[in-house]
Amino acid sequence: MVNAYAPGSGSALDPADEALIARRTAVLGSPYRLFYRDPVHVVRGSGAHLFGPNGEDYLDAYNNVPSVGHANPAVQAAVAAQLGELNTHTRYLTDGVVEYAERLTAKFPSPLDQVVFACTGSEAVDLALRIARRHTGREGIIVTRNAYHGTTAAAAEISPSLGPGNPIPDRVVLVDAPDPLRGETDPAAAEDFAARVRDAIAELERRGVGLAGMIVDSALTSDGLWLEPAGFLARAAAEVRAAGGLYIADEVQPGFGRLGDWWGFTRHGFADQEFVPDLVVLGKPMGNGIPISAVVGSADLFDEFGGDVRYFNTFGGNPVSIAAASAVLDEIEGRGLIAHASAVGDRLRAGLREIQADAERAGSGAGLAAVRGAGLFVAADLVAPGADHTGAPASAPAPDGDAALAVVNGLRERRILVSASGRAGSTLKIRPPLVFDDRDADRFLDGFAEVMRELG
Amino acid sequence: MVNAYAPGSGSALDPADEALIARRTAVLGSPYRLFYRDPVHVVRGSGAHLFGPNGEDYLDAYNNVPSVGHANPAVQAAVAAQLGELNTHTRYLTDGVVEYAERLTAKFPSPLDQVVFACTGSEAVDLALRIARRHTGREGIIVTRNAYHGTTAAAAEISPSLGPGNPIPDRVVLVDAPDPLRGETDPAAAEDFAARVRDAIAELERRGVGLAGMIVDSALTSDGLWLEPAGFLARAAAEVRAAGGLYIADEVQPGFGRLGDWWGFTRHGFADQEFVPDLVVLGKPMGNGIPISAVVGSADLFDEFGGDVRYFNTFGGNPVSIAAASAVLDEIEGRGLIAHASAVGDRLRAGLREIQADAERAGSGAGLAAVRGAGLFVAADLVAPGADHTGAPASAPAPDGDAALAVVNGLRERRILVSASGRAGSTLKIRPPLVFDDRDADRFLDGFAEVMRELG
Repeated sequence: MVNAYAPGSGSALDPADEALIARRTAVLGSPYRLFYRDPVHVVRGSGAHLFGPNGEDYLDAYNNVPSVGHANPAVQAAVAAQLGELNTHTRYLTDGVVEYAERLTAKFPSPLDQVVFACTGSEAVDLALRIARRHTGREGIIVTRNAYHGTTAAAAEISPSLGPGNPIPDRVVLVDAPDPLRGETDPAAAEDFAARVRDAIAELERRGVGLAGMIVDSALTSDGLWLEPAGFLARAAAEVRAAGGLYIADEVQPGFGRLGDWWGFTRHGFADQEFVPDLVVLGKPMGNGIPISAVVGSADLFDEFGGDVRYFNTFGGNPVSIAAASAVLDEIEGRGLIAHASAVGDRLRAGLREIQADAERAGSGAGLAAVRGAGLFVAADLVAPGADHTGAPASAPAPDGDAALAVVNGLRERRILVSASGRAGSTLKIRPPLVFDDRDADRFLDGFAEVMRELG
Repeated sequence: MVNAYAPGSGSALDPADEALIARRTAVLGSPYRLFYRDPVHVVRGSGAHLFGPNGEDYLDAYNNVPSVGHANPAVQAAVAAQLGELNTHTRYLTDGVVEYAERLTAKFPSPLDQVVFACTGSEAVDLALRIARRHTGREGIIVTRNAYHGTTAAAAEISPSLGPGNPIPDRVVLVDAPDPLRGETDPAAAEDFAARVRDAIAELERRGVGLAGMIVDSALTSDGLWLEPAGFLARAAAEVRAAGGLYIADEVQPGFGRLGDWWGFTRHGFADQEFVPDLVVLGKPMGNGIPISAVVGSADLFDEFGGDVRYFNTFGGNPVSIAAASAVLDEIEGRGLIAHASAVGDRLRAGLREIQADAERAGSGAGLAAVRGAGLFVAADLVAPGADHTGAPASAPAPDGDAALAVVNGLRERRILVSASGRAGSTLKIRPPLVFDDRDADRFLDGFAEVMRELG
């Protein structure tokens, strides 16, 4: 895993942290990983900041779950009030879940008029796959080369980013995303991507499994945050539908305002035509950390599935999760966080491009390339020194995962939290809570410039 | 589904409820079901009581999630306090998750020394299946005939109780549980069950899939609550292990004190020998409604899995879920709820046996049979009139699902909430919050006696 702690590899740890890690290892064991060469111990959070046991102030430029801020008081009040009233399930009539479902589905284009609630993005992905497979009577799923979609058995098998220990079965076919780092940004790149999807459909036919659908994170988060060329997801979806499959938009990471719009898929409309997926999967920031997720879809699809198989998720859409999710919508809307995310994200990208230009002028070794993103989802790659970073296909820069990891750990030493992703681990993943403000952005950029100079 | 609301079939609904149901149907759609001929609208809860919009007081004899009581103030306070401090994930060091994991695993026999947290019972079952399949390199799973284990694709395919619309694939083989209603209560019944498990293992071999493991709800909840003969699960587990498979105890329903002991599997030790499953799955009451679940297992099994595949569940074991789960343990221990559950459960069973005896003396039509259970998990079957209810195998009573549904709806008219389960839907499922007290038990028994007289 990119950016995992390897015991013994970091600096001398605080003895109390060392003791806590030993206890943790004894009882939580091997499936767990800590972040960073030197793990971060946190006891408190506020806004876009996390605090250590001795009051250390960490700037959180990574966490997308607490999108309306760590320890958000409105979410806290809503959850506490609801816990004092009622927390039961959807087999009794309650008002909140209906009101929230109406409010949520109103944010989607027709015919995405219904919703089923679950607790985690993995559960929602898993349910969307069940619906697609039942609808088509076929098993095959197409995902991108380094996708991540979750941890259930069905979600893990479509998550190649989990690494070589996680087998990808025959019923799953991988396609390369368009790669703007290699200059793939024009409409022709969308056509190339659609052609790869066509090939994948043919490959599933050849294997005798047939196409159930394609699921793509609308921001290609784990592949390295690819938002260009606009429309490439709509072109791919058209291929999938022409072959009778469903197109599933995984909005667990891009959804709820992250990209400066409610959902990531909307940016892929083209030629005045709205792009509407068959199913949309929501999660992470939906309850600001209280577990809630959802599948949004059409009545036709849900009728077909629900007529045969009921779906009951004990905690799914329970009154407390709904109270948290409602407070999150209130906060996003009431505080104008989507426009805020766009503005602060632009400031971050502009600052990073200046740092990139400075480094190029200085002819320093560490190469920053392809600063990109939308809203408060920002990425940039570290590339091998001396490469041409303009992105011309003839001289595509070589991604440098070690350099990215050095930046991640250099920032961590300055108490700025980010991580890395992408196939080579070379992509910096900068994805702060949406309340991250101009002052936070400036602190981030100052620290980033220092780290780049240090590594230069 | 047993006890599902069918629109138009009940009494004239309150117009406000009718309007809410219409809105709900428009936005939540077909996968959702409401309970009862006349759905129950709730707005508030306290202890073992739920309250409707006009203050109607429902006695909750059904819900096992709010086990330390609806709107429990200690859970509310712990969650509210933690939400005001910190709610992040397990890739940073935090104290609470380690402390809770130590406290939880201390309640299990060796070598069940480690835990992995998830959010729902379904996720925990899904993970346990992944571990069993990876450990064995085989795919086959054995479950009981009417089992329910969850809603992910992998959990649904081992949940035959979801009905004929939910296909059971070749890699899953079903076995009948011992049925005390048919007189199967002696040690020979345990041997018969073990023989059926041996046959199922052979069947998986014959199908070419091989055995990965067996998973059983330690109370056989969906099969109809079968706790006898003691030891039958241990005998079955011995067969599974002899064939190289893992035995997984599903404690989502029986766990955390429900049966008058911490876990349901412990009652299946025999001849002074403790019974220790390979993996234990926990859920529902763990956080009193805040989503948290877990897989408990040995370091050996988790090392084998976690060495190859990391497992990261974004919300799994987050500080707020852990705060809720810690408060639940405090409440169970501090208020002596396990002994309490045993005592009140015994009172319920004694009262039901009196009602059964009265009905038999009166020669009434409605037959109550096989009052059974442990702690606050109580079951009884409705059987066809005139049948011999003694349980002698030669004249096994015919289960009567319609009569059970009439009892469930008769109780609901008296604002007493239970449901029905079992293969014929004939088993009354009486499973109140653990705080259900003597007064609640008396109200329950009075209402129950009335309903039986009415139906008699």
